[in-house]
Amino acid sequence: MLNYKLILLFLGVLLFIEGAFITICSLISAIYGENDFFALTISALIVFFVGFLLYIFNRKTKKEVSKREAYLIVTGGWLILSLFGALPFYISRYIPSYTNAFFETISGFTTTGASILNNIEALPRGLLLWRSTTQWIGGMGIIVFSIAIVSFIKIGGMQLFNAEVPGVEKDKLHPKIRQTAKKLWMVYFFLTLAETFLLVFGGMSVFDAVNHSLTTMATGGFSTKQASIAYWNSPYIHYVITVFMILAGTNFSLTYYAFTGKLKKVFNNTEFKFYLLVIFVATVIIAVGQFVFMHRPAEFSFRSAIFQVVSIITTTGYATDDYLLWVPKGLWVIILLLMFFGGCSGSTSGSIKIVRIHILLRNSYTEFKRVLLPHAVVPVKYNKHVISNNIINNILAFVILYMMIFAIGTVFLSFSGLDFESALGAVATCLGNIGPGIGSVGPSSNFYHITDAGKWFLSALMLIGRLELFTVLILFTKAFWRY
Amino acid sequence: MLNYKLILLFLGVLLFIEGAFITICSLISAIYGENDFFALTISALIVFFVGFLLYIFNRKTKKEVSKREAYLIVTGGWLILSLFGALPFYISRYIPSYTNAFFETISGFTTTGASILNNIEALPRGLLLWRSTTQWIGGMGIIVFSIAIVSFIKIGGMQLFNAEVPGVEKDKLHPKIRQTAKKLWMVYFFLTLAETFLLVFGGMSVFDAVNHSLTTMATGGFSTKQASIAYWNSPYIHYVITVFMILAGTNFSLTYYAFTGKLKKVFNNTEFKFYLLVIFVATVIIAVGQFVFMHRPAEFSFRSAIFQVVSIITTTGYATDDYLLWVPKGLWVIILLLMFFGGCSGSTSGSIKIVRIHILLRNSYTEFKRVLLPHAVVPVKYNKHVISNNIINNILAFVILYMMIFAIGTVFLSFSGLDFESALGAVATCLGNIGPGIGSVGPSSNFYHITDAGKWFLSALMLIGRLELFTVLILFTKAFWRY
Repeated sequence: MLNYKLILLFLGVLLFIEGAFITICSLISAIYGENDFFALTISALIVFFVGFLLYIFNRKTKKEVSKREAYLIVTGGWLILSLFGALPFYISRYIPSYTNAFFETISGFTTTGASILNNIEALPRGLLLWRSTTQWIGGMGIIVFSIAIVSFIKIGGMQLFNAEVPGVEKDKLHPKIRQTAKKLWMVYFFLTLAETFLLVFGGMSVFDAVNHSLTTMATGGFSTKQASIAYWNSPYIHYVITVFMILAGTNFSLTYYAFTGKLKKVFNNTEFKFYLLVIFVATVIIAVGQFVFMHRPAEFSFRSAIFQVVSIITTTGYATDDYLLWVPKGLWVIILLLMFFGGCSGSTSGSIKIVRIHILLRNSYTEFKRVLLPHAVVPVKYNKHVISNNIINNILAFVILYMMIFAIGTVFLSFSGLDFESALGAVATCLGNIGPGIGSVGPSSNFYHITDAGKWFLSALMLIGRLELFTVLILFTKAFWRY
Repeated sequence: MLNYKLILLFLGVLLFIEGAFITICSLISAIYGENDFFALTISALIVFFVGFLLYIFNRKTKKEVSKREAYLIVTGGWLILSLFGALPFYISRYIPSYTNAFFETISGFTTTGASILNNIEALPRGLLLWRSTTQWIGGMGIIVFSIAIVSFIKIGGMQLFNAEVPGVEKDKLHPKIRQTAKKLWMVYFFLTLAETFLLVFGGMSVFDAVNHSLTTMATGGFSTKQASIAYWNSPYIHYVITVFMILAGTNFSLTYYAFTGKLKKVFNNTEFKFYLLVIFVATVIIAVGQFVFMHRPAEFSFRSAIFQVVSIITTTGYATDDYLLWVPKGLWVIILLLMFFGGCSGSTSGSIKIVRIHILLRNSYTEFKRVLLPHAVVPVKYNKHVISNNIINNILAFVILYMMIFAIGTVFLSFSGLDFESALGAVATCLGNIGPGIGSVGPSSNFYHITDAGKWFLSALMLIGRLELFTVLILFTKAFWRY
């Protein structure tokens, strides 16, 4: 039996947290004296009120979360936060269509970064900060956040954690899930602070620095400028952001170990090394390509290459350059390919995640040995451990589902009238929580022109992608409602 | 130790068989009194001569084929047949560039059907028949053919069979591989004959009927007409070819069982049922789409839909209609998606093959149950058997390799200057041995405009695809040369 009271209670708590964040934005708006103060305040009140109702009517229940309840809480939580998080944009009339406001908000929470705004700079600062904040909350995960600060959950924290951060294998920082959640958020908070400091040091305004730090660490990619990071013509800023994107795409447990001096754990990590290798190889090919075929200066080629590569592989989605203008076209097809990689597991990045790709590639290579020596047992190894068949099956199921959703999504979006390239790019970028795609949804364009049906469909893909497929899709299986 | 003498001997035997087929075409040319007689005869003589040399110098060796030798014989065999099979086109100057002649020939042997010819009807009948014959030989497999007719191989016939027809699980028709090979070729020959008869009955000339039957049963798709099957404005011909394409995409063991009255085996076959289901669903969507959005008559919509769907899913590649002109675009994106399906295992079709897709989808669905009940053992079943982890790993390795080659191939071809859509289409269609792609290599276009490097690259993809990846790629692993 599902405990619906508990589920609703939890949604109420999540709305409280959301209300608190909106209130902060509302205060910032008041300080700057901007015209979005009213909309933000009203939105916060509505969110608090609904949260209060959900809390009051459901507070008397057993606080034990089962696996199935965890899936409903996480999927439902992300959905309700996006539905209510759209209010400030909608009430302020800065985004007059609710579909567009919802798209922008879920694109924020899922750290996708796809936008429908034609003129980002027209937004007042309270709304801009709320837009960046959605990404920051979504990056590390609001459920993980609630586990860290709310103490009423007695049993089932781990179930919630797993439903929001599925990953492949967990490297728990602490046997108690609450302590792990706290440590992860601490690292996250500290890195955000550090980046802000370094960006201000490089000449960025404090407001812009805070916003970009929030969205870098979330691998979100929302910018306060229409031109994204290209607005700042400063190699220093580009390189600082590149480094922090790489960090945001790294397993946060590893970063924690690095903080505590356990560097050996970092440099023995197979996934981390493969992640750096892929970035290195893609950067070299694209930098050399730009240098040779586009006759760009060496440093500029390198900077453009590494920034775009890191921005896409970590699924951040910032741009300092429109990769669709690169020649030969093969250069941006590499970028498209990277959209399916994603960063490390346990990072804030989306997409397939590099560990899955790496294990599958190893399994393929191992298969050659198995074909030659059919009677030998040749296991797949990772981080010096043998990968069990269960994990391989799980990765397989994930990747096949991912590809299936990608393919069927492209067909579906083609029916909305989008051309093939744009449909393919839009689905790849939304499912992978990246931001820019190809064709008419490239880095210099946005998602405004897509039909309403297309936007709701892409919103669903963002959520499915952010929660790593199973958490959302399992709700649509017979098995979920039967057992 | 690899027995190179045996490998060369086998290549000699294959050249003899090729020479015999070229001689038949040469005779047909003589009967019609066409100007390709000289080129065909010279080619046959060269092929016989090289085959003779290989035979004479290597005939004294142990006739036991090991697994590794089998891979070398099969890959080497297909390569040498294509290299020499290009001679008639090249010597006759009907295809003045050797690259083009080779592309056309390997496209034939691999039953791809991608052509560089701008005016197929300009070719004399001897060459047209040779072109169709390459597909017919390649369809069932020349190694399987040689196993059926050559008796000198004492041990290792099964290894050769497996290297040319990897498949997923073998349903051997007979414990002796030679008997199985004979039965398969008998079914193949009989169906080709039956189709010829039915096409002549429908008003097609005997020459065209023979050619189209050869290339239908091979799921090859070469036509004697520039307009492909659209040349015949006859519903009867379209439907007859549709039925035989479906048969060619069916497991030939099943067809054999059907001949022998074991119909229960046919209709209990999970793969066959899924194959028909996919054809049905795709046909209905596309037919309704054409009827509603393109205002075409009902029968015409249905015929165009089922013909194109079957042509692509069986990887034949005939056309009665240019799917790229369909609106909305989603309709042809479905066709693109079908390019990754392929027909049943044990058929002459290429691509991933529907059994692999089906098992992977089942594994994904099963994974939901495993997520909910982590301690239960939930196996994947197929044809009422539990699918072992070894098979799942093998399928996984196959599909991942396939996708990787597809993705990297698209990047590579984009560097040759092709636009993204055409590059993606060309790689998908060549790797899947289909024929037409999308963009500038659609059903109304051809591959003439691709650069020479691009053509050699696509030729390699055709061979890799036809031999189901492992047989070719294993030669490039360290493990192959070490063990």
